[in-house]
Amino acid sequence: MTTFADYVRTHQDRFLRELQEVVRIPSVSTEPAHAPDVRNAAEWVRNAFLKLDIPAEILETAGHPAVLAELNTNPDAPTIMIYGHYDVQPAQKEDGWDRDPFSADIDGDKLIARGAADNKGQFHAHIKGLETFLNTIGRPPLNIRFLIEGEEEIGSPNLGGVVREQKKRLRPDAIVISDTSMYQEDTPTICYGLRGLAAAKITVIGPDRDLHSGTYGGAVANPIHALVEILAGLHDREGRVAIPGFYDDVKPLESWERNSWAELPWDGAEYRKNLGVKELWGEQGYTTIERTWGRPTLEINGIYGGFTGPGVKTVLPHCATAKITMRLVPDQNAKKVLDLLEDHLKSIQLKGIQIQFSRQSEGNPVRFDVKGPWIDALIRALKTGFAREPVLMRDGGSIPIAGLFKDEFDVPILMAGFARPDCGAHGPNEYFSICDYERAIITSATLLQELTHVHLRDV
Amino acid sequence: MTTFADYVRTHQDRFLRELQEVVRIPSVSTEPAHAPDVRNAAEWVRNAFLKLDIPAEILETAGHPAVLAELNTNPDAPTIMIYGHYDVQPAQKEDGWDRDPFSADIDGDKLIARGAADNKGQFHAHIKGLETFLNTIGRPPLNIRFLIEGEEEIGSPNLGGVVREQKKRLRPDAIVISDTSMYQEDTPTICYGLRGLAAAKITVIGPDRDLHSGTYGGAVANPIHALVEILAGLHDREGRVAIPGFYDDVKPLESWERNSWAELPWDGAEYRKNLGVKELWGEQGYTTIERTWGRPTLEINGIYGGFTGPGVKTVLPHCATAKITMRLVPDQNAKKVLDLLEDHLKSIQLKGIQIQFSRQSEGNPVRFDVKGPWIDALIRALKTGFAREPVLMRDGGSIPIAGLFKDEFDVPILMAGFARPDCGAHGPNEYFSICDYERAIITSATLLQELTHVHLRDV
Repeated sequence: MTTFADYVRTHQDRFLRELQEVVRIPSVSTEPAHAPDVRNAAEWVRNAFLKLDIPAEILETAGHPAVLAELNTNPDAPTIMIYGHYDVQPAQKEDGWDRDPFSADIDGDKLIARGAADNKGQFHAHIKGLETFLNTIGRPPLNIRFLIEGEEEIGSPNLGGVVREQKKRLRPDAIVISDTSMYQEDTPTICYGLRGLAAAKITVIGPDRDLHSGTYGGAVANPIHALVEILAGLHDREGRVAIPGFYDDVKPLESWERNSWAELPWDGAEYRKNLGVKELWGEQGYTTIERTWGRPTLEINGIYGGFTGPGVKTVLPHCATAKITMRLVPDQNAKKVLDLLEDHLKSIQLKGIQIQFSRQSEGNPVRFDVKGPWIDALIRALKTGFAREPVLMRDGGSIPIAGLFKDEFDVPILMAGFARPDCGAHGPNEYFSICDYERAIITSATLLQELTHVHLRDV
Repeated sequence: MTTFADYVRTHQDRFLRELQEVVRIPSVSTEPAHAPDVRNAAEWVRNAFLKLDIPAEILETAGHPAVLAELNTNPDAPTIMIYGHYDVQPAQKEDGWDRDPFSADIDGDKLIARGAADNKGQFHAHIKGLETFLNTIGRPPLNIRFLIEGEEEIGSPNLGGVVREQKKRLRPDAIVISDTSMYQEDTPTICYGLRGLAAAKITVIGPDRDLHSGTYGGAVANPIHALVEILAGLHDREGRVAIPGFYDDVKPLESWERNSWAELPWDGAEYRKNLGVKELWGEQGYTTIERTWGRPTLEINGIYGGFTGPGVKTVLPHCATAKITMRLVPDQNAKKVLDLLEDHLKSIQLKGIQIQFSRQSEGNPVRFDVKGPWIDALIRALKTGFAREPVLMRDGGSIPIAGLFKDEFDVPILMAGFARPDCGAHGPNEYFSICDYERAIITSATLLQELTHVHLRDV
């Protein structure tokens, strides 16, 4: 019998060409102008399954569609659902990319493109993992669903509806998600917790039009001044979020976690050098790992108001806007935290301005069990794919749908991310390691094999 | 003899058509893409003089050119220099304009266009005032210079050199500037003081690239957070500028000024309604008029950083920028105030970020004598043009060149502005009243007549 590794080696050039095809589609879900590209990416994903003779369909939503592929073997066999997303973050060459973000150039071991790591390379590795299994061993004694959505980067506003609608077809016994990072290069990693995400927009309105800052400066409140005062007040001197009640539902970190995280290799000098900063910053009393994996934060992701062109324009502007996201940890609730922020803003008394608040997305934090036969299967698969012992971590990022899956299905969620920490997800020059892509394919095929050994009665 | 008013009435349609021609040229000095339009506007101004048989030339500078027109009658007669600027602030329909900002539409009494009031309508009224004088009375027994520059809206960086180079040709005995507002509609106004302007850009640099706010949020300083903290610290709770030393050179308002300003009609409810704000804001202990005319301020004119598009992008950005201008009053000095701001920024200790500071323009505040034969001539001219007694005011705006004229020539500067307070200079829907345009032309012609009565020996 051909081994998984042999099959991957034989077909690696074709696999990579296919991946290049899909990353070249600029499926930026947040930008309305890219809606046709998002649709094209959905069609591409559907066709990737059809080519393997796996039934797949496009599920329409009020926004971008999802793709559902379904392989049934035996109603008594376990059903595994693999989740991914084919939409990507915005990217423009001017953001600091060395090339067109959608050129999908290969440079050494790197496939460079927006979405290469987050998340096209990762879900594609699972499709190729299934192909590898099918073409070496044959049909796995498992029922398999792939659910690949197109709205992850905008907070998955419509997938909840899809999941509830398709609940009977999906009925997973375990869910596999590869949308996180490895702890470090060459280190297979299982992620057992994700921060939640609550996004909002704050706009401060001043005079009903832009004014001459000479004629009115000193007489009329400048909405940029009000906005910066409001925003500066969202953190205290110790780097804590200053919204009243923000920490009320935060579970303290457990000592086994703090101990195990403290044992992970972590080089502060290297970390700072990689980011080009002299010092780190954050909530006092916690290590950097604790702050990013286990503590909530508030970030201003964008700010704009008044004149932003070259030169000088002496304007006292009509309005100013900030875009904010909060990363949440158990047992915070995204809706409640947004309520707290809204209440806080309502309590602010600033003369001559109005504060507008709008919610942009909500996703709750999740933390999964780190023991049991399902996760043991994943550990063995990663060991085979990477020839190394995996580490357990939490992640500072958010996959809004993870909380929904937990609520809707209450089954084990297995998260193994294949992106490197410096992969540039959400920033310029995003890349996916071609070596890790191939290891991920082997891991995925192996996981299917390992999961066939998990008998439902054992669980 | 035809009266000035008769001549203006006869030629009013042509005057307005000529003014429409020049305001249709989008001579935005701060935007490099508009450099050819700026050049076209200079040519247009030069031709406006040549058509009156007045020698005029384009004076090249390192930036945009100035136009100098010169009418000599008698070396012993007084020389009057009229200053204006043909460059305009940026304007785009999206800023809130009801129409293309350069369409120069006429709506009732309004000529609506960027630059209609600031400053094309005003200097054009002086050109037409001279035409009116020439075609009714003949050559005035005065030497006249028009100096119309193309860089006022970017702080007149090159006109100082021009003035010093042409000092012997210019040699004014008095300078006329119409680039301010009337105190209110139908109220001819002499402005005897202008605030200075000091402009700077502050950029906060964080990590060397945009980062994923999930992976790095809580670990790395966000440059937008640092920027809003820095900016919020530039004002105290009482609305005062909090830069150490900022008020050191501010001359207290004199009691005659405070008394005379307190007597001016001023309707707070109307003022607020016109701006669409419920409350005003500013330094405590001063009236609104005092705050805008006689007290220094600091305004953030623009701010930008991170993701500013639609939707959500969870980025921890590389950098964030604010554009700031300070309005200065006697005896503040623009360079010194920028030094104070720079020193203040250097004293700020924030972890993990770097602050970059760059100066964008400097202009000192000015205050002129309100007594003497020259200003008396202006008072009589305004009385004729508007059939009302003029009021004396200071203005919150800045004409950087006014300080330079004061330093270089030390002669009376006569400032009579013809724009209405709601003219929209620097904002959307800028307009110039056609009625005031015609009054300004009559005032200008009358001023030339009145100035012929000022004998140099009287001064």
